[in-house]
Amino acid sequence: MENLFATDKLNDLLPRIKAFVETELYPLETVENLTKPFSKIEKVLNKKRELVKAAGLWGLQHHLTLVEFGQVSEVLAMTPLGHYVFNCQAPDIGNMELMEKHATDQLKHDWLVSLMKGETRSCFAMTEPGFAGSNPINLGTTAVKEGNYYVINGRKWFTTAADGAHFCIVMAITDPDAPPHKRASQILVSTDTEGFKVERNISIMGESGDGWLSHSEVTFTNCCVPLTNLIGTEGAGFQLAQERLGPGRIHHCMRWIGIAERAFDIMCRRAISRDMGDGQRLAEKQFVMGWIAESRAEIDAARLMVLSTAKMIDEEGAAAARNRISSIKFFTAKIMLDVVDRAIQTCGAAGLTDEFLLSFWYRHERAARIYDGADEVHKIALAKSILKKYA
Amino acid sequence: MENLFATDKLNDLLPRIKAFVETELYPLETVENLTKPFSKIEKVLNKKRELVKAAGLWGLQHHLTLVEFGQVSEVLAMTPLGHYVFNCQAPDIGNMELMEKHATDQLKHDWLVSLMKGETRSCFAMTEPGFAGSNPINLGTTAVKEGNYYVINGRKWFTTAADGAHFCIVMAITDPDAPPHKRASQILVSTDTEGFKVERNISIMGESGDGWLSHSEVTFTNCCVPLTNLIGTEGAGFQLAQERLGPGRIHHCMRWIGIAERAFDIMCRRAISRDMGDGQRLAEKQFVMGWIAESRAEIDAARLMVLSTAKMIDEEGAAAARNRISSIKFFTAKIMLDVVDRAIQTCGAAGLTDEFLLSFWYRHERAARIYDGADEVHKIALAKSILKKYA
Amino acid sequence: MENLFATDKLNDLLPRIKAFVETELYPLETVENLTKPFSKIEKVLNKKRELVKAAGLWGLQHHLTLVEFGQVSEVLAMTPLGHYVFNCQAPDIGNMELMEKHATDQLKHDWLVSLMKGETRSCFAMTEPGFAGSNPINLGTTAVKEGNYYVINGRKWFTTAADGAHFCIVMAITDPDAPPHKRASQILVSTDTEGFKVERNISIMGESGDGWLSHSEVTFTNCCVPLTNLIGTEGAGFQLAQERLGPGRIHHCMRWIGIAERAFDIMCRRAISRDMGDGQRLAEKQFVMGWIAESRAEIDAARLMVLSTAKMIDEEGAAAARNRISSIKFFTAKIMLDVVDRAIQTCGAAGLTDEFLLSFWYRHERAARIYDGADEVHKIALAKSILKKYA
Amino acid sequence: MENLFATDKLNDLLPRIKAFVETELYPLETVENLTKPFSKIEKVLNKKRELVKAAGLWGLQHHLTLVEFGQVSEVLAMTPLGHYVFNCQAPDIGNMELMEKHATDQLKHDWLVSLMKGETRSCFAMTEPGFAGSNPINLGTTAVKEGNYYVINGRKWFTTAADGAHFCIVMAITDPDAPPHKRASQILVSTDTEGFKVERNISIMGESGDGWLSHSEVTFTNCCVPLTNLIGTEGAGFQLAQERLGPGRIHHCMRWIGIAERAFDIMCRRAISRDMGDGQRLAEKQFVMGWIAESRAEIDAARLMVLSTAKMIDEEGAAAARNRISSIKFFTAKIMLDVVDRAIQTCGAAGLTDEFLLSFWYRHERAARIYDGADEVHKIALAKSILKKYA
Repeated sequence: MENLFATDKLNDLLPRIKAFVETELYPLETVENLTKPFSKIEKVLNKKRELVKAAGLWGLQHHLTLVEFGQVSEVLAMTPLGHYVFNCQAPDIGNMELMEKHATDQLKHDWLVSLMKGETRSCFAMTEPGFAGSNPINLGTTAVKEGNYYVINGRKWFTTAADGAHFCIVMAITDPDAPPHKRASQILVSTDTEGFKVERNISIMGESGDGWLSHSEVTFTNCCVPLTNLIGTEGAGFQLAQERLGPGRIHHCMRWIGIAERAFDIMCRRAISRDMGDGQRLAEKQFVMGWIAESRAEIDAARLMVLSTAKMIDEEGAAAARNRISSIKFFTAKIMLDVVDRAIQTCGAAGLTDEFLLSFWYRHERAARIYDGADEVHKIALAKSILKKYA
Repeated sequence: MENLFATDKLNDLLPRIKAFVETELYPLETVENLTKPFSKIEKVLNKKRELVKAAGLWGLQHHLTLVEFGQVSEVLAMTPLGHYVFNCQAPDIGNMELMEKHATDQLKHDWLVSLMKGETRSCFAMTEPGFAGSNPINLGTTAVKEGNYYVINGRKWFTTAADGAHFCIVMAITDPDAPPHKRASQILVSTDTEGFKVERNISIMGESGDGWLSHSEVTFTNCCVPLTNLIGTEGAGFQLAQERLGPGRIHHCMRWIGIAERAFDIMCRRAISRDMGDGQRLAEKQFVMGWIAESRAEIDAARLMVLSTAKMIDEEGAAAARNRISSIKFFTAKIMLDVVDRAIQTCGAAGLTDEFLLSFWYRHERAARIYDGADEVHKIALAKSILKKYA
Repeated sequence: MENLFATDKLNDLLPRIKAFVETELYPLETVENLTKPFSKIEKVLNKKRELVKAAGLWGLQHHLTLVEFGQVSEVLAMTPLGHYVFNCQAPDIGNMELMEKHATDQLKHDWLVSLMKGETRSCFAMTEPGFAGSNPINLGTTAVKEGNYYVINGRKWFTTAADGAHFCIVMAITDPDAPPHKRASQILVSTDTEGFKVERNISIMGESGDGWLSHSEVTFTNCCVPLTNLIGTEGAGFQLAQERLGPGRIHHCMRWIGIAERAFDIMCRRAISRDMGDGQRLAEKQFVMGWIAESRAEIDAARLMVLSTAKMIDEEGAAAARNRISSIKFFTAKIMLDVVDRAIQTCGAAGLTDEFLLSFWYRHERAARIYDGADEVHKIALAKSILKKYA
Repeated sequence: MENLFATDKLNDLLPRIKAFVETELYPLETVENLTKPFSKIEKVLNKKRELVKAAGLWGLQHHLTLVEFGQVSEVLAMTPLGHYVFNCQAPDIGNMELMEKHATDQLKHDWLVSLMKGETRSCFAMTEPGFAGSNPINLGTTAVKEGNYYVINGRKWFTTAADGAHFCIVMAITDPDAPPHKRASQILVSTDTEGFKVERNISIMGESGDGWLSHSEVTFTNCCVPLTNLIGTEGAGFQLAQERLGPGRIHHCMRWIGIAERAFDIMCRRAISRDMGDGQRLAEKQFVMGWIAESRAEIDAARLMVLSTAKMIDEEGAAAARNRISSIKFFTAKIMLDVVDRAIQTCGAAGLTDEFLLSFWYRHERAARIYDGADEVHKIALAKSILKKYA
């Protein structure tokens, strides 16, 4: 923990969460659990959720500042399923935040309450196969008003956790003639609506997965939902998506820092325990010492970047922190992936096996440099914003 | 093809092999085939093997120089199963080379003939879980002479393709009191020998695989094999292993170059076809152009390095090329992984899916920087050899 | 300025210092001034020193916390001679800090008072040509007690600013039989002592320089100084050197961040103003935007690292911050040099000329990765300290 | 030497040249010579030129293929003034090549003969301060026909070796209405023509230099030269410039490889001789071994790239090798600068001094990534050319 960002709440909470994670969740990191489809371990995870509730650690994100929750998120991320067990996994956490602020009371009553209890799951359908994800104002999905209904048609993919979700929040064009950033709206669609279909769980890095741990292609075919399922106002889709991204980046980045910390820990343990057969331990090799030192400095730097950004959002709002939010996305993703890679190299062949957690992150987190805006998109956005001041 | 290394044979062969690979093998690159266990596609691959024989392209490695075969290997590597279909996949190709030179006529008759026909498979058991792979003179596996038999005991892992292999060549200590590099021997063990056991296919990057596409932990428990199963002479185990490595590195490195070329091709196709929705194609973005240019230069450089090393081995022997062999291992592995990574980034989320081949290599080829001596081991060996001249 | 580290004092001081630097010092950045020996511009700089005193900005380091002074240091570093004009240049600032804490009242009266007024200069002689700088416990210089005197013999180099210094603090072995870290002492030597000689200003990066902007080889030949010239206690040489390093690193690192910020500013100005003749400005090229974005993120990260370390030192002492102090040295030096390099590349051929400041830093600051412990020394120290907890 | 590119001529020449360089030129590498203006060492260098002639090694470039001369160039580059002493220094070598092919007999008689004898020097004026060098079709300098004369007006900079040159070949617009690539011509201007002026030697990296080792700003003010001073045909300026670049890149790149080899040698010598005071030599540290190994692999790769490109130009012409020519420029420059940087880091503070050659190259060769087309320009050109095939 960085002293700079310590709070009384965290001083109380973090050790308890850390102990819970180590005691209850680390033992679940078996080869079997890490390679099985999600549905096979859901039951055991749901039991752990009960323990979280019993320990008074449920729903933390609703009572903490972003700076505080970021630090919780780091600890949860030290094990692959930490966020799920604490019910603050993406995309549900983002949907909760969105609905708390912008959903009608009726929608909250019907959908948010059970989501917050962990009884249901949700998904968020934005990216489309036909359009570059880096340019979110181009969408093919439409929601046309007919009477009291929106009739939605379109195809989305990389819709995380659609498999088994109870509802989906979809981004669709409601006014194609509006200025580009006012064309889309966010609409809640119950997944049992006729015309909503999970076409397939996309096979990614060798696995199509299932349940919460999957990314689907979904279609909307004349899918009718009441006009009252609109989140926020019509045409506010992009603005809401932007609003989601600020805190969302903090969540992701702190999650990556948690991953990096755990990978760092694995690397150090291996280095100290591995006898090289030449009278030295791996820890005495300069190559390995170099990786450890660089990783330590980089993780510390990334954490300071992310938490200072969280503080900026807490105090001045996401708009004021826009540039810094761009920075942390590409800065932190790179560092996390570099640390994971160094840890693999340190562990040698064993590091490639599913016994070391590292290969799980190597596969599942390469996406960090792509989703929510590829590295390159953020770099361009940041540079343009900086250069505007010089123009 | 580099003109520098063209030969008449290659001018005839390469276009035919390339056409075969593109016509017969590219269509096999489906999501299903790339994510299924090997046993599910073995039958279809074996049919392709018949076509290879019919086309007169079987067993090329036995009739080509290393420089020539290297260039064949590059083309075969442009698809994940090319080497298997042409029966020049590791570890069988290495075992064939070894046995051609060092096995008795009886062993050749009993085991090599069918291996060369592609009727059987083999494996090579060297690395052990308890010993750092970077220091091959430390082995725990022993072969003790009792009468006309070696009695072998030990545990090996990352024994590629042990699952379903007909025989295993094992490295075992035959004389613990000899100088370190004279302690071990290589012995052929039929896999139906009592006491030989494939304990498990190791789960790597989320998959334990099966058949040829797996890496096993195997045990030898009082495993008795005739003394005549010795390959070469007693105590020559390390020398034979070294001998295997020179050409083996060329095979691997040219395979990596083939992978890099195909990834490069995928990257360029994506760049040219992807409309970014802002009036530009991805190919017009400098970030992507930079990746393409750097990849082109690096792949060309790596190919020159590897083929010039192959030529050195052909002309002067592996010993003369020792330093260069160390260089190409770490130099080429890095370049291949970098190109695959850039290609993924260029393809965006789609690049992570199993529809783009890239994720297959991302997972399966991270090992390139580890097996057959980690990057770091080769760097140290190279530096020491260079510095010796300055001492 | 990072809000996290703002203080009332800084809110008042920083804008005034920034204005002073921009108004009074930027105009001095002519090709002539940047390429002349220091002695040619000393007069004009000394006039600026009077203005600093008049503005009430003299001697700030004595009244500020490390976190505060770090931020001042960043602003001063935005021009090559800022620190000199404010009399907080190395090595004088380090000598002032040392003497304030550890010199006798007599030494303070005789040497420190005039140093603080900017009437004199000093140097610090530690590194020796015959011994690796990364291992400071090996020294050849000795100080042997004879009556009331130390008789000092030895050769030092890279003694910054020895040319024209009024006194030198020298590290010399006073007890060769003590444990390694207790052998040396720090002793003040007036530069007009017989036997003290500035042998030469070392020619570095094409210039031997002179005065404050030079690095000398100096010799001590039977150089007699009173025993009372000892700083601190006998045998405390290394401990005092260590003590100097904590704050010293903050000074250096914040100076590097100031350099990086100015280089960043030059890069942005060039990008926005340079017409590429193809209808675009340099600022519209993705390569340049990428450099700008990466530099922004890295500089921000480095500043957070350094200031959080300064805060740790302020609050908990340098010992508690030891690991972080190692981190910032190599982390910040690399970032500064990378930003300077990118800025040069952005400016093209012009960036190599002495009209752009960049080439000044390119030459003068490459040393950042070497002095006060090379990158590698800090990485090893950091890794060892981390790994100790795992042992 | 790479066996692949050995020839009988080289087997004879290279050892003689190498011996000459080591015996006659290495002793000139004193701090004084490396930091003095060129004019102060010209006399001693001219004496060495006489020795080159006596040894029958003068004017080699005129009798060798590009592959052969490239290898000569590497050896000459191992000392900073090798090319000058052998009269194959830029820009004279480029001017000689150009004039041999495209100058009239009269121009050859008047200007080329003495240049080839080393009695005169020349320069080439292309880059202009007002126009981005990466886009050579934008020029402000004009040559207007009046009677039998061109009247030239314009301003050029980074005109290497203009100071003391006997003539200048200038690129000027002769037909502003022609298609962009047909607008300019190359015209020979005697430097004693009225209106030709060397305005200043540009101060670069702290030095403005003089004579051959300087880069000037030059102006043409109503500068009248006979129409017969045209090189090649009117409007062929860009084509001639392109033609110059192919072999020019080989010259530069092989020169960089020579520099890298010498830096590598310096690094190894330092590593082996430096006692770290901890019982180890620097050569035993993995960090240093890593740099040595990576440098070895990279230099070898770069040499193969450049010489294979030279061979392509020799055999198929520069047009066929265009992509490879782009590759080697940025690939080799980066490697050379990286090796120089690692060598500096290995040598520590001493590496920054002018006693180690390294700082000479660090300053003088940073330009490698900028002149003759910045890295980025070549990357874009290469990528565009590759992507054209995919369109």
